[in-house]
Amino acid sequence: MKLASYVSGRWVEGSDQGTALIDPVLGTELARASTTGVDVGAALAFARDKGGAALRDMTFAQRGALIKGIADVLTAKRDSYFAIAQANSGNTKIDGAIDIDGGIGTLKYIARLGETLGAAKYLKDGKLERLSRDEAFQAMHVSVPIRGVGIHINAFNFPSWGLWEKAGMSILAGVPAFAKPATATALLSYQMVKDVIDAGVVPPGVLSLVCGGARELTDLVTGQDAIAFTGSADTAAALKTHKRVIESCVRLNIEADSLNSCILGPDAKPGTPEFDFFVREVVREMTTKAGQKCTAIRRAFVPKAVIGDVAAAIEAALGKIVVGNPRNETVTMGPVVSKSQQKAVLEAVAKLKSEAKVVTGDGALKLVDADADKSCFIAPTLLRCDTPATANVVHDVEPFGPVSTLMPYDNAAQAIQLADRGEGSLVASIFTGDKDFARDTVLGIGPYHGRVLVVDASVGKAQTGHGIVMPMCVHGGPGRAGNGAELGGLRGLAFYHQRFAVQGRADWLQNVAAGAADANG
Amino acid sequence: MKLASYVSGRWVEGSDQGTALIDPVLGTELARASTTGVDVGAALAFARDKGGAALRDMTFAQRGALIKGIADVLTAKRDSYFAIAQANSGNTKIDGAIDIDGGIGTLKYIARLGETLGAAKYLKDGKLERLSRDEAFQAMHVSVPIRGVGIHINAFNFPSWGLWEKAGMSILAGVPAFAKPATATALLSYQMVKDVIDAGVVPPGVLSLVCGGARELTDLVTGQDAIAFTGSADTAAALKTHKRVIESCVRLNIEADSLNSCILGPDAKPGTPEFDFFVREVVREMTTKAGQKCTAIRRAFVPKAVIGDVAAAIEAALGKIVVGNPRNETVTMGPVVSKSQQKAVLEAVAKLKSEAKVVTGDGALKLVDADADKSCFIAPTLLRCDTPATANVVHDVEPFGPVSTLMPYDNAAQAIQLADRGEGSLVASIFTGDKDFARDTVLGIGPYHGRVLVVDASVGKAQTGHGIVMPMCVHGGPGRAGNGAELGGLRGLAFYHQRFAVQGRADWLQNVAAGAADANG
Repeated sequence: MKLASYVSGRWVEGSDQGTALIDPVLGTELARASTTGVDVGAALAFARDKGGAALRDMTFAQRGALIKGIADVLTAKRDSYFAIAQANSGNTKIDGAIDIDGGIGTLKYIARLGETLGAAKYLKDGKLERLSRDEAFQAMHVSVPIRGVGIHINAFNFPSWGLWEKAGMSILAGVPAFAKPATATALLSYQMVKDVIDAGVVPPGVLSLVCGGARELTDLVTGQDAIAFTGSADTAAALKTHKRVIESCVRLNIEADSLNSCILGPDAKPGTPEFDFFVREVVREMTTKAGQKCTAIRRAFVPKAVIGDVAAAIEAALGKIVVGNPRNETVTMGPVVSKSQQKAVLEAVAKLKSEAKVVTGDGALKLVDADADKSCFIAPTLLRCDTPATANVVHDVEPFGPVSTLMPYDNAAQAIQLADRGEGSLVASIFTGDKDFARDTVLGIGPYHGRVLVVDASVGKAQTGHGIVMPMCVHGGPGRAGNGAELGGLRGLAFYHQRFAVQGRADWLQNVAAGAADANG
Repeated sequence: MKLASYVSGRWVEGSDQGTALIDPVLGTELARASTTGVDVGAALAFARDKGGAALRDMTFAQRGALIKGIADVLTAKRDSYFAIAQANSGNTKIDGAIDIDGGIGTLKYIARLGETLGAAKYLKDGKLERLSRDEAFQAMHVSVPIRGVGIHINAFNFPSWGLWEKAGMSILAGVPAFAKPATATALLSYQMVKDVIDAGVVPPGVLSLVCGGARELTDLVTGQDAIAFTGSADTAAALKTHKRVIESCVRLNIEADSLNSCILGPDAKPGTPEFDFFVREVVREMTTKAGQKCTAIRRAFVPKAVIGDVAAAIEAALGKIVVGNPRNETVTMGPVVSKSQQKAVLEAVAKLKSEAKVVTGDGALKLVDADADKSCFIAPTLLRCDTPATANVVHDVEPFGPVSTLMPYDNAAQAIQLADRGEGSLVASIFTGDKDFARDTVLGIGPYHGRVLVVDASVGKAQTGHGIVMPMCVHGGPGRAGNGAELGGLRGLAFYHQRFAVQGRADWLQNVAAGAADANG
């Protein structure tokens, strides 16, 4: 099977063999993807001209309905996607749900945003404001959709959610989505887009999909395009320094990996619900999707007095994790996505061991229904570093797999300092029953984070998860995390809009404002 | 005289001769500036540690009062600054006022913003929102000041306004200002900061000034610093691709030059007030500060039928401009800032002449009280290009001096297309008495602009000017203009804050929200 690209309103296969997509459990080839010969320039122009015009003619409510239509197609086909996620990503049922249902749920949320915005086609930001003594002359701010495309370069770990969270927000803004999934796991993205296109719910040019290498994509961007990238810092740097991106000052949003942390409060002694919720969360973040989430917990900070208890509790819980072929229903953790990722994780663990010792995992791998040679498994590995204040590697090297490092802190101020040593993270979580500790820690670590989750006993069950991106909350962190921001309700629309000030007669401004929805809801 | 730098709480002179600051009328040396031997790393650390801590301890109201204190010092010394602007920048009284009063006025406006925000120290953005069925678990968004400094790299044309619009917003946000004015005109920045420091109104580390080369400044930035740059696209590109800036994902706001346009409406026939206001604005933008404003009108689009009338009217008005030494009170236009700028403008005009012919100016220079050999004057030059749809240079080459190109358009749709050919501009203005033409053009050119001014007869006198940046409106345009945004009331605070989502118990979130002011006013 060869994955075609959906460009210029039709499916086009690459002209050569391309790259193989491999089952990370069985080692077998599932499909191939190639973009050789695909006219990316024509595809971009088609999307900008046809798709852009179509979307800008629609109201937010109409775009919302379009997005709802996509979600409905995917919902109807939902069950068929789990087998793909299992085969191409080695996903368990829960892993698959996070990606598949996460994508569909995000689309549904974005569709509702469109409904809320109603009959407008653009946004106003704030009220009219006087600029001089004469009340007749005032100013306001308006946001209109950019005239280009949203170029969405996605990571291998979320072929569904990554695709749809970007495409949904882009389309709602009135900007065509031009998606480039990671080739290694593109099968799910391909099948979903195929189903949506076959269902005829998307006007020409509104949704494009490039399966295979990105080729000259970045050579062809303009100052009216917006590139949203999720992936490694290295690729992010290549994008940021790309000649065309620089020259045309292309909008660029980066979500890079980060060393997210969680903090156990000084009050949360063994036996408290917060202690138990903390242990559960660390284990869940380590093992869900085999730790391959940009938001996963890499560093766990606990009061020095309880580090032994925490280590024992996590070790015990990890002991119950069943690693192996997700086709076996007893399996609770699958492989990482590829041999090269497996190698990278093992190398990262080796580096971490220069500062941390192994509590459990690291090589001690018992597999269910899988051949270690053919597959890409990593044992759930808990490390422990007792000198986090003087250590460096534990705050810098990210094992993109089922690996976390447990570290002690001396006092509340040090917990904040240690979390911030990540130099910018997507998320941190705080497990505590102490309201003041929670507030001080939230505000203390805030400058270095994109999201902070606080869990006490009362929300321990209702909370949506350290690693789960909710579409009402911004996703993206400063510094190392890429300094980007996606989603966050209406906030996510800003990236695809140009906001500008309009100065003029107050009554004329009211006339412009009358056609706008409120950017701040 | 040698300009010292104010770093680490004291004045430090560079150890070598440094660069000369030259009077652009007389050609004489006014001062020298050098940063050789200045410990920039220690200065940054001092600002981050002392200045940052001091500001974060203050409420917005207290920071506003601090900024008001700066404005008061400058107001008291105001008259003394005009002589510096005249000597170092060749400014007329009006030119000087735009820079000096513009800076003071912007500080006063920012101080009032602080008063409005009151006793809070950080911001909340939007309301609490539910994330799951359980109402107890919710989310909100908070913005806290970043922990670094605002590194403000300014352009030569606004040594006062450029300094203070950036420093004011940064300080209000709780982030120390670390200013690096353009060396060529740094005398005014130096004297103003000296007066402010001497007055003792600024706590240690809150305001730093580097006079001379930037040296290793960008090698020392962190992911918690924010660089605000105004200047050329080339320097912007160097900043964007700087290794440290890339690696640490440093916040970067760029204001680059752009080919701003103004559009005369089809209704605005000769004899209408809109026609007259248009001509006045073009002439004012061409000659104020000798056309050295990033926001100046470079391209003037008029209905084909009236281009002859417009050319004649502008030519007549330019004929009344008196060019020469601003010390002579009859003079209404001064020089450009330096011989190298003079050369660059003449080269740009030569390029423009490949597509446009000269209506007036270009060499025909009559100087009052000035020696052409020693000084840096450019004749106010109006060009005309009758084929703007097929021309390229007129939409691409920016003469940073008293030069504009007049061009005809065939219909309203083409006027929009031509304005957008600038590929991103800081500002455009529309002169029309037709409400519908105004609205359609505003929304049509919006994606390519940071600000749009609409002038009809009723606001012709009250309007604040095409080229004047008002602190209540965002300043910055997409694409070529750098894709940045400064000012805009409270919007300007976002650049110096980290916005993050907080998820947790609703009542705990209310506790965090209680300490915050509303980011949206």
